[in-house]
Amino acid sequence: MSDMLNEPRPHIVVLGAGFGGLTFCQKFHHPKARVTVVDRANHHLFQPLLYQVATAGLSAPEIAQPIRSILADKPTVTVLMDEVETLDLAKRRVTLSRQVLEYDYLVLALGGRTSYFGHPEWAEFAPGLKSLDDALNIRRDVLLAFERTETEPDPAAVLRLMTIVVVGGGPTGVEMAGALAELTRVVLKRDFRRIDPSTARVVLIEASTDVLSHMAPDLAANASEQLRQLGVQVRTSTRVKSITQSRVELDNGEVIEAENILWAASVAASPLTQQLGVELDRAGRVKVSPDLSLPGRSEVFAVGDMVSYLQENGKPVPGVSPAAMQQASHVARIIEDELSSAHQSRLPRAAFRYFDKGTMATIGRSAAVAQIGPMKLTGFAAWVAWLVVHLLFLVGFRNKAAVLLQWTYSYFTYKRGARIITPTESPPKA
Amino acid sequence: MSDMLNEPRPHIVVLGAGFGGLTFCQKFHHPKARVTVVDRANHHLFQPLLYQVATAGLSAPEIAQPIRSILADKPTVTVLMDEVETLDLAKRRVTLSRQVLEYDYLVLALGGRTSYFGHPEWAEFAPGLKSLDDALNIRRDVLLAFERTETEPDPAAVLRLMTIVVVGGGPTGVEMAGALAELTRVVLKRDFRRIDPSTARVVLIEASTDVLSHMAPDLAANASEQLRQLGVQVRTSTRVKSITQSRVELDNGEVIEAENILWAASVAASPLTQQLGVELDRAGRVKVSPDLSLPGRSEVFAVGDMVSYLQENGKPVPGVSPAAMQQASHVARIIEDELSSAHQSRLPRAAFRYFDKGTMATIGRSAAVAQIGPMKLTGFAAWVAWLVVHLLFLVGFRNKAAVLLQWTYSYFTYKRGARIITPTESPPKA
Repeated sequence: MSDMLNEPRPHIVVLGAGFGGLTFCQKFHHPKARVTVVDRANHHLFQPLLYQVATAGLSAPEIAQPIRSILADKPTVTVLMDEVETLDLAKRRVTLSRQVLEYDYLVLALGGRTSYFGHPEWAEFAPGLKSLDDALNIRRDVLLAFERTETEPDPAAVLRLMTIVVVGGGPTGVEMAGALAELTRVVLKRDFRRIDPSTARVVLIEASTDVLSHMAPDLAANASEQLRQLGVQVRTSTRVKSITQSRVELDNGEVIEAENILWAASVAASPLTQQLGVELDRAGRVKVSPDLSLPGRSEVFAVGDMVSYLQENGKPVPGVSPAAMQQASHVARIIEDELSSAHQSRLPRAAFRYFDKGTMATIGRSAAVAQIGPMKLTGFAAWVAWLVVHLLFLVGFRNKAAVLLQWTYSYFTYKRGARIITPTESPPKA
Repeated sequence: MSDMLNEPRPHIVVLGAGFGGLTFCQKFHHPKARVTVVDRANHHLFQPLLYQVATAGLSAPEIAQPIRSILADKPTVTVLMDEVETLDLAKRRVTLSRQVLEYDYLVLALGGRTSYFGHPEWAEFAPGLKSLDDALNIRRDVLLAFERTETEPDPAAVLRLMTIVVVGGGPTGVEMAGALAELTRVVLKRDFRRIDPSTARVVLIEASTDVLSHMAPDLAANASEQLRQLGVQVRTSTRVKSITQSRVELDNGEVIEAENILWAASVAASPLTQQLGVELDRAGRVKVSPDLSLPGRSEVFAVGDMVSYLQENGKPVPGVSPAAMQQASHVARIIEDELSSAHQSRLPRAAFRYFDKGTMATIGRSAAVAQIGPMKLTGFAAWVAWLVVHLLFLVGFRNKAAVLLQWTYSYFTYKRGARIITPTESPPKA
């Protein structure tokens, strides 16, 4: 039993096993070095499909895979399930909850978390969607609201139980709202005896003038139209003023009573970025050098959603998985080159350049929008493109096949495969 | 929107949607009657495969299906997700947490729960396996123990973390122990870097002289042998004296330190049976009349694991799903006949007779035992028989196909598809 953590080989510590951290571990090859990757979960999560778990379309294991399994054929990589407590960049040391790691290179891939525009008190009433726990709790609460409706005599309470508000019209909010509209429509029509399906509503609230504001205006308008056809009430140019238990107040004075309020409006970087002693943007993201290292710390890199990086055209690199993966590959090449060059006589490092492969969002069964280079797709064609891309990206054979089976089944039967209320108990409120 | 609960048609209330309650709803047909089925979960659970969820072989939605979906094509059946609080047989009234139901016939199908031989304090340290929550919590705790081992410097603690004790050598205990042995062997060999796989052990403790004591002695002995070949330490004629946190004391004085202790030794009927005012056996099961009605209450029936019923050969009907399903069909026929006969002039009711279709238990990959009439199977043949029977029994197309895919994948790759640690937080201890 070798204890790789104490070997004298150059040691690269990777914090986080999302798309950035995992890609680094997969892409980095060097005979002299060893890698330790730390994540607080035991699984890598296919985050783009997390909304499918929250809306009962897929089961949790279908979009998650143990990090150890993915990296099982990389003997130089050690996987630790542990929590990062402090970062000491001066001593090149990371303190975890159960041990201390010393590094030669550090790759920060800590991702983002839900942020409430300076209103942390809203978190209790409007959960965000970042982890499997989040998704399973949302699924339980949404399904429970329908169940409660079946035995609720008070019409006002029924209206509240049957209303879901989604705050934020970015890709996550649009995909959630579309999937929820399909869920309510299909589930209520077939399975419930005493509910009037016409009372169910899904309201999507977006502060800017259109949903999907990162896409071309005609595609964004098309997405709004597709959402409306699914039955979603789309409210653009509308801001949330306050959120309390089952109650959203808008800036126009309107109040919406909704049993479920879901937050998809904003993300911020991990709070660990505050320990780095470098400049951060408003969302707590690290302003990295062109090579993705921290200013003044050439052995420390940051990738993915925790990074603020301007492209040559002046636009920021978007917080999407292809960007995190490209950045991780860039950092892997830099470190490989430096470990291979004699006497560490370092070459000037290349600057990172983001290659935009396109952007897409799914809205529902046969409904999506996609923008790939100059090509714009809507409706069924966009949906097929979205399906193919997501299946190709899914990590591991089983997931691809199981997810394809699940989707085929849902498509032809209009059923949802994962409408299971579990865990039974709500978690303690934060 | 019709409110069926207030219609004047004969009303049959079914409590519980396990194999008994669900089968009643599926089999019962009468143009004049309406049925209301109540369960505290929203899903019917395929309990014989629950151990596969606990041991990371299957995901929760693969063995569970919403009760509403299963009964969607039965317009006379209303499904309520609610909890039974009190039973008032004199007034023919059931009080749920959110409403009161009045019935003409009552079918009790409340199932069983884990029982600790008069030691309820063991529940905290040795969870049983009855619900999806139980299974997901066991899965999390077992997987977490391996993760902890990877960073644990103390050899005694490693030994404890790598030990799993299963108490009870009935079908559930045998299936759990076999699946855990395969999980540890496969997972440790491939994915962990710092663990010595030879330190992992699964100990199965059984009070009687052999495991699977309900099967023929040669099959039971064969099962023990197959378990040992998988690496399970089988201790028969051994009783548990006490269980505390990560510590089992046996009647021979031996103490086993084990991070995970799982209880598969005993079940008892739902505590609601104590409200019935009829004779119960030691496990709280109802001693029903030959027609499965309660003595003195011809309009109240009980089926499944909550029933104590002696066959003509003097042996009790076993607590297995085919028995519950046969009993439910029997009760459905009695009620149909009575509702159809003119002026309720009741015929003498037929006595229930159990038809034993055989019994089987799986031990691992290609390992099982089966007894079907005079035929006895072991090893691969028994395993194939087990696989076919369980796939045929699974409710709903999707589950069958998804489970088959999952098993094929696990079989050929030795991987486990659902090794996901979630929910992250442990539930509050009882």
